[in-house]
Amino acid sequence: MLSFVGLGLYDEKDVSVRGLETIREADLVYVEFYTSRLAGVSLDDLSEFYGKEVRLLSREEVEVRPEEWMSEARDKKVAFLVGGDPMISTTHLDLRLRALRMGIETRIVHSSSIVTAVSGLTGLQNYRFGRSTSIPYPYMAGGKRIVATSPYEVVVDNLERDLHTLLFLDIQPDRQMTSSEGAALLLEMERITGGDRLAAALGVGVARAGSEDAKVLADWLPRLSEHDFGGPLHILVVPARLHFMEAEALVALAGAPEEILGMAKS
Amino acid sequence: MLSFVGLGLYDEKDVSVRGLETIREADLVYVEFYTSRLAGVSLDDLSEFYGKEVRLLSREEVEVRPEEWMSEARDKKVAFLVGGDPMISTTHLDLRLRALRMGIETRIVHSSSIVTAVSGLTGLQNYRFGRSTSIPYPYMAGGKRIVATSPYEVVVDNLERDLHTLLFLDIQPDRQMTSSEGAALLLEMERITGGDRLAAALGVGVARAGSEDAKVLADWLPRLSEHDFGGPLHILVVPARLHFMEAEALVALAGAPEEILGMAKS
Repeated sequence: MLSFVGLGLYDEKDVSVRGLETIREADLVYVEFYTSRLAGVSLDDLSEFYGKEVRLLSREEVEVRPEEWMSEARDKKVAFLVGGDPMISTTHLDLRLRALRMGIETRIVHSSSIVTAVSGLTGLQNYRFGRSTSIPYPYMAGGKRIVATSPYEVVVDNLERDLHTLLFLDIQPDRQMTSSEGAALLLEMERITGGDRLAAALGVGVARAGSEDAKVLADWLPRLSEHDFGGPLHILVVPARLHFMEAEALVALAGAPEEILGMAKS
Repeated sequence: MLSFVGLGLYDEKDVSVRGLETIREADLVYVEFYTSRLAGVSLDDLSEFYGKEVRLLSREEVEVRPEEWMSEARDKKVAFLVGGDPMISTTHLDLRLRALRMGIETRIVHSSSIVTAVSGLTGLQNYRFGRSTSIPYPYMAGGKRIVATSPYEVVVDNLERDLHTLLFLDIQPDRQMTSSEGAALLLEMERITGGDRLAAALGVGVARAGSEDAKVLADWLPRLSEHDFGGPLHILVVPARLHFMEAEALVALAGAPEEILGMAKS
């Protein structure tokens, strides 16, 4: 049996009671921290909390040759741990389908995810979110800085339909994109494409969701790019026109400029 | 301190370890089960699991006069429990803003939600979902059956943008809408509006997400309305054109017709 166990948002206490039982009863426990990660706890502390050795899998072990560790699940209880709720990443679905083709039974133990937590933290209503997208780090090619502009297009498409956009920010082995960097990159994408929607748009940054030390801050997007949100992980939201209760929430929970109250719809 | 604690998907074990600690340390524990509910456990069993009395609040106590029980949170630790992840319902945001206006500190303990669990259960990728919506029960007015058609419009709008739609199904005190009823109502809405998108559309029903007994079934929408999904709670998804991995997942995990493999995009 291969159990995909979501660890939730931030630290060792965000796993569900069912998830914790599954881990403690497992014969082998693996974790991957490259599609997401728990910013609030170390691998050693996780092992200690579970009373079990937890083996960190490399990206290559997950994506290129997962059969090596997955095949243990033919006759042992294997728990595969991931940050957030499993299966938000395509990688996890690919693993599950591979396991099924290998004749291995699978199950999922769900957990909290930034996808819904962002509504609780910001007050922006879940049903008003359009499709989400990710902002990757720019890279250099042929001496030129390459900035993908597709995230900007998703934001504008959602704004035109009066829908909010959740933007996942790049996670690399040596760095994690901040909400401010994400805001600055969106503005850079707008300059590249010649658009004009974001200068007057609001942005909401969320850092360390799920922790006591979470930071939620709303400001005009150009100003948001100058804020310091502190340690990882961060995400970014570009809201559409706010309903009044959402505007009230952003002022109360995220220190948004009070002028947004007069611009909200009832 | 007023803590909004999400109980997750199905039974008493879907709460997070942090949520369970919060409940066990609380002076007073309230729960509301009308915006969502845990289908897999009774109120008495919850009380026993927590070792605490849990008081069920009526809709009126939550929406009309919440000050009565919320004011206890001025000097006591009050835990307010809800199914799923808190704040997906506007009602919870309204409560939190009221509490802040009363000078009461609030926090949220997040949990699993059908909004992200549906990706794990069906293999449909989270970033391909457009805005979600709810299907209410039809009602009689002036001797006529009234069926709201706005859910159909959201589905069609998402389909036109090649995005999946998650449809929440009505929860009433005496009945919960099934995935099959939801599918039949969508087809009825299409007849009313004279549309023609759904006869050839796939539907995916999910019942009892998070339980060992979960049922996930994909079929052409007209056929889906004839399936029996068993006990509550149910939801419904209308997928857009499938990526190949999604089609493979729906066949493997949800018994979808194999012909969808040939229609998927790579």
